[in-house]
Amino acid sequence: MAKCKKSAKKAKTTKYIYFFGGGKSEGKSSMKELLGGKGANLAEMSSLGLPVPPGFTLTTECCDQFYKQGQKWPKGLNEEVDKNIKYLEKVTGKTFGKGKNPLLVSVRSGAAISMPGMMDTVLNLGLNDETLQSLIDLTGNERFAWDSYRRFMQMFGDVVLGIKHHDFEHALDIVKKRNKVKLDTELDVDGLKQVVTEYKKVYKKAKKSFPQDARKQLQEAIDAVFSSWNNDRAIKYRAMNEIRGLLGTAVNVQTMVFGNSGQNSATGVAFTRDPSTGSNKYFYGEFLINAQGEDVVAGIRTPQQITLKGSKEWAKSQKVTEAKRKKEFPSLEEAMPKSFKELDAIRVKLEKHYKDMQDLEFTIENGNLYMLQTRTGKRTAAAAVQIAVDMVKEKLITEKDAVLRVEPKSLDQLLHPTFDPKSEKAAKQIAKGLPASPGAATGQVYFSANEAEKQAASGKTVILVRIETSPEDIGGMDVAKGILTSRGGMTSHAAVVARGMGTCCVAGCEEVVIDYKSKSFKAGGKAIKEGEWISLNGSTGAVYAGQIKTTDPSLTGNFGTIMKLADKYRKLGVRTNADTPHDTIVAVKFGAEGIGLTRTEHMFFEGDRIISMRKMILAEDEAGRKKALKGLLPLQRKDFTGIFKALKGKPATIRFLDPPLHEFVPHDKKGQMEMAKAMGVPLKQIKDKVNSLHEMNPMLGHRGCRLGIYYPEITAMQAQAVIEAAYAVTGSKPEIMIPLVGNVKEFTNQKQIVLDVYEAIAKKKGKKLPYLKIGTMIEVPRGALTADAIAEEAEFFSFGTNDLTQMGCGFSRDDAAKFLGQYVEMGIYENDPFQSLDQEGIGELIKIAVEKGRKTRKNIKLGICGEHGGDPASVEFCHKVGLNYVSCSPYRVPIARLAAAQAAIKYGKK
Amino acid sequence: MAKCKKSAKKAKTTKYIYFFGGGKSEGKSSMKELLGGKGANLAEMSSLGLPVPPGFTLTTECCDQFYKQGQKWPKGLNEEVDKNIKYLEKVTGKTFGKGKNPLLVSVRSGAAISMPGMMDTVLNLGLNDETLQSLIDLTGNERFAWDSYRRFMQMFGDVVLGIKHHDFEHALDIVKKRNKVKLDTELDVDGLKQVVTEYKKVYKKAKKSFPQDARKQLQEAIDAVFSSWNNDRAIKYRAMNEIRGLLGTAVNVQTMVFGNSGQNSATGVAFTRDPSTGSNKYFYGEFLINAQGEDVVAGIRTPQQITLKGSKEWAKSQKVTEAKRKKEFPSLEEAMPKSFKELDAIRVKLEKHYKDMQDLEFTIENGNLYMLQTRTGKRTAAAAVQIAVDMVKEKLITEKDAVLRVEPKSLDQLLHPTFDPKSEKAAKQIAKGLPASPGAATGQVYFSANEAEKQAASGKTVILVRIETSPEDIGGMDVAKGILTSRGGMTSHAAVVARGMGTCCVAGCEEVVIDYKSKSFKAGGKAIKEGEWISLNGSTGAVYAGQIKTTDPSLTGNFGTIMKLADKYRKLGVRTNADTPHDTIVAVKFGAEGIGLTRTEHMFFEGDRIISMRKMILAEDEAGRKKALKGLLPLQRKDFTGIFKALKGKPATIRFLDPPLHEFVPHDKKGQMEMAKAMGVPLKQIKDKVNSLHEMNPMLGHRGCRLGIYYPEITAMQAQAVIEAAYAVTGSKPEIMIPLVGNVKEFTNQKQIVLDVYEAIAKKKGKKLPYLKIGTMIEVPRGALTADAIAEEAEFFSFGTNDLTQMGCGFSRDDAAKFLGQYVEMGIYENDPFQSLDQEGIGELIKIAVEKGRKTRKNIKLGICGEHGGDPASVEFCHKVGLNYVSCSPYRVPIARLAAAQAAIKYGKK
Repeated sequence: MAKCKKSAKKAKTTKYIYFFGGGKSEGKSSMKELLGGKGANLAEMSSLGLPVPPGFTLTTECCDQFYKQGQKWPKGLNEEVDKNIKYLEKVTGKTFGKGKNPLLVSVRSGAAISMPGMMDTVLNLGLNDETLQSLIDLTGNERFAWDSYRRFMQMFGDVVLGIKHHDFEHALDIVKKRNKVKLDTELDVDGLKQVVTEYKKVYKKAKKSFPQDARKQLQEAIDAVFSSWNNDRAIKYRAMNEIRGLLGTAVNVQTMVFGNSGQNSATGVAFTRDPSTGSNKYFYGEFLINAQGEDVVAGIRTPQQITLKGSKEWAKSQKVTEAKRKKEFPSLEEAMPKSFKELDAIRVKLEKHYKDMQDLEFTIENGNLYMLQTRTGKRTAAAAVQIAVDMVKEKLITEKDAVLRVEPKSLDQLLHPTFDPKSEKAAKQIAKGLPASPGAATGQVYFSANEAEKQAASGKTVILVRIETSPEDIGGMDVAKGILTSRGGMTSHAAVVARGMGTCCVAGCEEVVIDYKSKSFKAGGKAIKEGEWISLNGSTGAVYAGQIKTTDPSLTGNFGTIMKLADKYRKLGVRTNADTPHDTIVAVKFGAEGIGLTRTEHMFFEGDRIISMRKMILAEDEAGRKKALKGLLPLQRKDFTGIFKALKGKPATIRFLDPPLHEFVPHDKKGQMEMAKAMGVPLKQIKDKVNSLHEMNPMLGHRGCRLGIYYPEITAMQAQAVIEAAYAVTGSKPEIMIPLVGNVKEFTNQKQIVLDVYEAIAKKKGKKLPYLKIGTMIEVPRGALTADAIAEEAEFFSFGTNDLTQMGCGFSRDDAAKFLGQYVEMGIYENDPFQSLDQEGIGELIKIAVEKGRKTRKNIKLGICGEHGGDPASVEFCHKVGLNYVSCSPYRVPIARLAAAQAAIKYGKK
Repeated sequence: MAKCKKSAKKAKTTKYIYFFGGGKSEGKSSMKELLGGKGANLAEMSSLGLPVPPGFTLTTECCDQFYKQGQKWPKGLNEEVDKNIKYLEKVTGKTFGKGKNPLLVSVRSGAAISMPGMMDTVLNLGLNDETLQSLIDLTGNERFAWDSYRRFMQMFGDVVLGIKHHDFEHALDIVKKRNKVKLDTELDVDGLKQVVTEYKKVYKKAKKSFPQDARKQLQEAIDAVFSSWNNDRAIKYRAMNEIRGLLGTAVNVQTMVFGNSGQNSATGVAFTRDPSTGSNKYFYGEFLINAQGEDVVAGIRTPQQITLKGSKEWAKSQKVTEAKRKKEFPSLEEAMPKSFKELDAIRVKLEKHYKDMQDLEFTIENGNLYMLQTRTGKRTAAAAVQIAVDMVKEKLITEKDAVLRVEPKSLDQLLHPTFDPKSEKAAKQIAKGLPASPGAATGQVYFSANEAEKQAASGKTVILVRIETSPEDIGGMDVAKGILTSRGGMTSHAAVVARGMGTCCVAGCEEVVIDYKSKSFKAGGKAIKEGEWISLNGSTGAVYAGQIKTTDPSLTGNFGTIMKLADKYRKLGVRTNADTPHDTIVAVKFGAEGIGLTRTEHMFFEGDRIISMRKMILAEDEAGRKKALKGLLPLQRKDFTGIFKALKGKPATIRFLDPPLHEFVPHDKKGQMEMAKAMGVPLKQIKDKVNSLHEMNPMLGHRGCRLGIYYPEITAMQAQAVIEAAYAVTGSKPEIMIPLVGNVKEFTNQKQIVLDVYEAIAKKKGKKLPYLKIGTMIEVPRGALTADAIAEEAEFFSFGTNDLTQMGCGFSRDDAAKFLGQYVEMGIYENDPFQSLDQEGIGELIKIAVEKGRKTRKNIKLGICGEHGGDPASVEFCHKVGLNYVSCSPYRVPIARLAAAQAAIKYGKK
C-alpha cells in the first residue's frame, strides 16, 4: 500500500511529456539528459522559430520509470499522452486515427547520447483502414496513400511487433512477381493493395494483430522504443562505447510531413561544414525528390547535392556530364531555390546558435520546408581541428572552446601514415586483430627479428610477423614498418613497444596462424609466405593481403595551431618515454619537454651488448660481474650521451635496471650453448644459473632496486655511465630514478651508491654537475603508503602506474586479459585499468603519495610515466591531483598536451 | 669551528660516568638504557645496601659519542675518569697503579640488552711490575700475585690488544713442558715467573707493548670495549636477534675482589629459583672454592652446590657417595655457613626487590661476601609459567604482571612433544634445516604421500620426506608424525600446512639429498632408506638418524592458569584457521573461540574429490561443470556439517574457492591420461586445457572471487553446501567469506549468488537461518583503499595479510626468500614481513581499511586470518588498530591469547 501511494505521488509531481512546435516549446537544448539529444534539439529549434513539425517528447525519466514498474507505463502517463495528442490535434487542425484530415505521426527513439541498436523509427503511425481513405481523399494521390499504408504496416510489424523483416520482403516479392515488376516503385495502386492483403496474412501467420486503433498503435510503438533500450545490441553498444549513467531513452512523437508527396516534395540530410575535412567552402549535403527520409540513406537512388557548387564537383568526380547532371541530378539550389535559400539561412542561424558544426535533417512537403533534426555533427580528427581553428577566426568560439572541441584521442589519426580510403576499401581483408598501435603500414612479411633486420638493411620494407614478441626482438621491431602478432593484448610487449616507437601494430590477431618452420602464415583462407606483401591498419586492426598506398601526416597548419593553443592553457608538463636518441628526437618534435622515463634495460638487448649483459648475469662472483660491466659501461655512456644531446638541455629521467634478470638470459639450448662457449664454462653451469633465475611470480620477484641492492656494482656502473655522459654534454639534466622502491631504506642504499660514484667523478673532474637529481618510481603500493619517508630522501617521484595497477589491483598484466574483458563488460571496472587509470583505487594510492610526499618535501617534483600518461582521462586525473607532469610514448605527446589543456580549462589552475 | 664549539658544549652538559658502591650510588635499575643492564643493577644493588665492590660505569651515551667523534673519547671524559678513579681510591683506601695498597679493577662491557660477541672482561687491571710487588707484600701470597699478573697480561693482550689467544696458550705450554707439569695450577712461583717472561716475548713478537701505566691500561681497555660494540660478531648477533635502537655499550670499572685468594675465598653463580623448572624448592646455584669467576663456567673443575639439599640431589644423580660428597664437594651451606646465610638473605631481598627470578654472581674474599651482578634470570617456558603462577600466589606480583612475564612465542615449547634432552644430545645429528613447525617427532621414513598413508594405515609411525610438498600431499602430511623437506622456506607449503596441523616439520633442509627413484636420501655422510628411523626437532631444525624418545605436553596446571589469566585481560577474540573437524577440535581445546578461516579448497584435494574437481575444471561448458559440481556438493556439505558440529555454536568463517585452478589439475602425463580416460576425452584436450590455465604470475591471476565470477556455479554450489549444512546443525554460525575482493562490485556479484541460493533453500525449508553473515577478505590493496564502499555491502572483513603483504610490498612469497634474508640482515625490513606484519607499510593499509570500513558500517566485524594472526608483535598491532579478533593456526591459539592479553595490559582497552 505504501508503495502504491508513493508511486501515485510520483506520478503527480513528475512531468513525463514535453511539447514542442506550433509556437510552444516546453524544452530546450540543455535538457538532453531528460529529453534525449533529438527531443532537446527539436524543442530548441522550435524555440528558435524554425519550421519544426509539432510533436512531443516522452522523457528518459519516463523510460526509467517504465523499467522500475516492471515494463509498465507509470501512473498518469496515459492521461498525459492523451492531453498532448489533443493539443497536437488542436495545433495541426487534424484528428488522430479518424476523420477527414487525419493526424499521422512518426515515433522515434532518442537518448542523450546517440546510439544505434535501439528501435529507430516508425513512420505514418495513425494510418488505418479509415484514415487511409481520408488520406486518399485529401491528397488525391491514391498510390501515395496505399504506399504509405503498406510501409507503415511493414515498419510496425517489423520494429514494434518483432515479425521477421524477411517475411514482409517475401510477401512483397510474391506480389512483384505476380505483377511482373522488378522495383517497388513500379507497383501500381492495385499492386500496393495486394501487398497490404499479403501483409495482413503475414501478421496472421505470426499470430500478431495489426491494431486499427491509432491510440493503441501509439502505445505499442512507445512500449517498443522503451523495450529496445535494453535489447542486446543496445546493451552491447553502450558497453563497447563506455556509455553509462543514462536513465533511458526518450520517445519523440512528431507530426508526419511527407517528402514523398510529389515532385514538389523532397527530403535530405546536410552538414553545416564538410565533416571529413572541416572545410567551410560550401554547404555539404544530399537530398532526394519525392522520397521519405530512409530513402536517402538506403542507397537505392543516387542522392543529389544541395549546392550547385557541390553538385558540379560531384558530377566531375563521378564523370557525369553537365547536361546529365542538370537533368537527372540537379542541386537543391537549382531545383527548389526558395527552399534552398530558406535552408541555407537556417544553416547559418543554427551554427551561430549552437556555435558548432551541425548535422541536419529536413523535409520539403509541397514546397514547405520542415526541420526534423539538428545535432552536433560527427567529424574526422582533421575536420575537428579545421573547424575549431576556423571558428576561432570567425569569432564564433573562444580559444578555450577550440581546445575543448578536439577529442585528444582522435589526434592519433593525424600523427601516423594513413591508407588512401578507396584503396583500403578495395583491398582484401584477411584477418582482424587488436588495433594495438595506430597508423597504416604496408610491407613484406618476415618472421624473425634477425631476418627483418637483414632484409631492412638490404632496403626491403618490412612487416614483422611474430606469435608474440619479446625484448630480444627489439632490433627487428625497430626496423619494421609494421608489426603483426597472433597473441597478446593491448598491453602486450609488441603493443607497448610499437606504440612507443610509433610503429603501426596489429596485436593478438588470433585468426593468423603462424608456422615459423615453413616461414608462412594462414589467415582468411590465404597462405602468406616470407617476402609477400601485406598491409596493416593499426587504427582498426585490419590485416590485408597485398600492398596499399599510404600517405604521411603533417604536424603544422591547423594541427600546429591547436597544439599552440593547448600549450597556452595547460598547466601540466608533458614529457616522453624514450629509450633512444631517435625516439627522443621524434618526441621533441611532438612537443615533449623532456624525458620522463628512459628504460635503460632496453639498451642491453641491442647487438653484442646482450652478450656482455649475459656474462654479467651468469658470472659466478662479483669479480666476474664487474668485468662484464666494464664492457657495458662505455656503451651505456654512449647511449646517455646521445640522449642528452638530442634533448638539448631538457631534463631526462633515467630509470636504472628494472626487469628480472631471467628476461636477459637464453632459455633455449642453442643460446645456452653459445653462452657456455663465450664464457668458457660447462653448459650445465649456464643451465643451472638460468634455472635458478626462474620465479613463480616474476612480477613480484627479484627485480627493480632489489637487483641493485643484490648487485651494487650494476647500480654503480649505471651511475657512472649517466654521470660521465652528463659531464660530456654541456647543459645535460640527468635525473636518476631508482625503480621499485617500496621502502625508503632501499632508496637510501641505492642513492648512496650513486652519490659515491658521483663524488669520485666530481673529484676527478674538479667540479660539480650543475644539475643532478635522484628520485624514485612509486610503483609498489608500499612505496605510495610510505611516501612521506621516501620523500625525505628522494627529490622526485614518478608514478609507475602500470605496476601500481598490477600490485594495487592484484592483476598480472600478462594474465588478466582472460577475465578483465568480462569485468569491463559486467561493469565491475568501468575501463580496463591498464588503459585508463583506475581513479577510485589506484588513484587513491596516488593521492596518498602526493599528499604524504609533499608533506615532507614541499617542492618534490611529481610525474607519471606509466602507459596512462597518454590517456586523456588519466591526464585529467593527474591535473586534478596536482602532478607536475605526465610522460608518455612519443606519439601520445600531442594527445597528452591537448588533454592537459582541456583539464586545465575544465578544472582551473593547479 | 662551529662543530667544535658544539661538542665542547656537549661535553660540559653531559654526565658520562655514574659511580656506585661505598655508600654512594648515582644510578638505579631503571637506567638500563644509559648504564647497561650490568651497570644499572650494580647501582641498584649498591643502593639496596648490598655488599658491592665499588666502581663506576661509563654510559652508553659515552659509547655513542665515542663513535660520533670517530672512535675518540668525547671531550671531558678524561677528566671524569680521573675524578672517579680518585673517588674510588678514596672509598677503598687504595691507590691505582702504584703504592703499597694497590687498587685493582675489572673492566666489563654491559649493554642494555645482554649480548655475546662484545669484549667481555678484563680482570686485575692495575697490575704492573710495581703493584705486583705490593700485592705480594700485602697478601703474603707470592704465587697468587704472580698468577694474577700472568692472567692479567694474557687477558689484556688477548682481548684489549688483539694478540692471538693461541700465542699465549702456546707460551704457557712451553713453560709447563719445561717444568714437566700438566695443569696451570701445578706451576709454582718460579714457573709463573717464567710464564710472565714468555708472555712479554709474545707481546714483543706481536709488536704490542704491555703498558706499565695503569691509567693507560684502563684507557685502552675502555677503548677496546667501545670498539667491540661494532665487531662482526656483535653486529651479527644484534641483527639475528633483532636488537635495534641501542646507543652502544656501557663500560663497568669495578674494584677487584678475589675469590682465588685462598681456601677462605670462593666464587659462584646462582639463580633465585630453578631456571629449568621454575621450582622454588631450593636456592639453585654452584660455586668453587679458591677460584676466579671464569673458572666456574670454564668446566675444568667440578663446581659444588650452594644448598645442602641441592648438593645431595646432585650427588645422587651423579652417583657420588655421601662420604665423597661431604669431603670433596661440600655445599656452601656446609663449607661457609656464614656466607651462605648472608647470600640466602640477599636472595630473598633481591627477589622481593626485583619481583622476579634473579641470576646472581658473587665472590667471597677471605670470608667476606661480595655481590658482583644480579639480573633477571633466563628460564625455560615451563619455568616462566611456573614462576609467574607461583609469584602471584606469593603476592610478589599481580595477575597482569604474571601475564606479561611469559614470552608468548615460548609457549610453543609447551604444546608439542619434546625429546628427552639427554637422548637428543646422544643422538647422531645428520643435517640441519629450518625449524618450520615446532615439536619433536620420531618415525620411519617414507617418500610419497600415498606410501605414507598406506604405512600409517598399517600401524607404522611415519616421517614423510619430500623435496617439497604440494596440496596433493595433504593426505600423507596428515598421517605423518613429522615432515622433512629439502626445499622451501618458513612459509613454504610444507611449513604452513604443518604448523596448521601442529605437526613437527623441518623444511628447506638442503643438506638432505633425496632420490625418489631409489627411495632414499643422503645426509651427513649417511644414506637413509625407506622404512628406516629418523628423528626431527622442529623447534631447532635438527635431523637425527635413529629413534629418540619423546614426551607429550600437558595443557592443564600452570599452563592452564596462565591461559585463564590471559583470557581475563585480553580484549581481542582469538579464532583459528582450520579446514577439518579434527583441526577444529584441536583448536577449540587450545581455546579458539571460533574459526576465522576455513580454506574450502583444501577439501578438494582429498581422495576421489580431486577427480570431481578436475572434471569440473576441465569441463568444456557450464553443463559439464554443473554435473561435476553436483558430485562435489554432498561432500562439501558433509565437511561443513562436521565443522559446525565440532564448533558447537561457535562461528565459522568459510572462505570460498581461492587458488588458481591450475593448482588442481595434473601437470604430469600420467595424471593427464587418467583424466582423459575418466572424462572420455582425448588426451590433447586435457593437455590444452591444462596449458591454457598456465599463468605468468599466478599470484596476480585468475583466482579468488575472479573464479566465482567467471564460474558462478562454483559459488552457488559452495553456498548451497554451507547453507544446507547450517540448516542441518542447530546453532551453526556460518560466515561466508568471498576472497580476493578488490572492488565492491566483485563482492556484490558474489553476494547476490549466495543470497539467491539462500532464499531458495529458506523457501523450501520454510524458515530463515538464525545466523548468516556474508563478508570478505581484504587482501588486495585496492580492497583496503576502497573499504568504505565494500563495507556498505560486506558484514565483516578478514585481513588476509599474507596476500596483502605480497601485493602491498610486491614480494612473491614463493620467490622472495632469495633476497628477503639479505633485506632483513641489512635492516631494510626489520623482520621478514611474512612472519611479522610490516606495520609501517601493510599496517598502514589495514589502518586505512579499518577507518574506512567503520565509516560506512559502524559495527563491522574486523579480523585477521593471515599467518600473522599467531605472531605476538602482529597481534599487538591488531589490538592497537582495534580489530575484533585474530585467527591463527590451532597451535598458535595459546600464543595469540597470551599476546592479546599482553597488548591489552600494555595499551589499555580498545
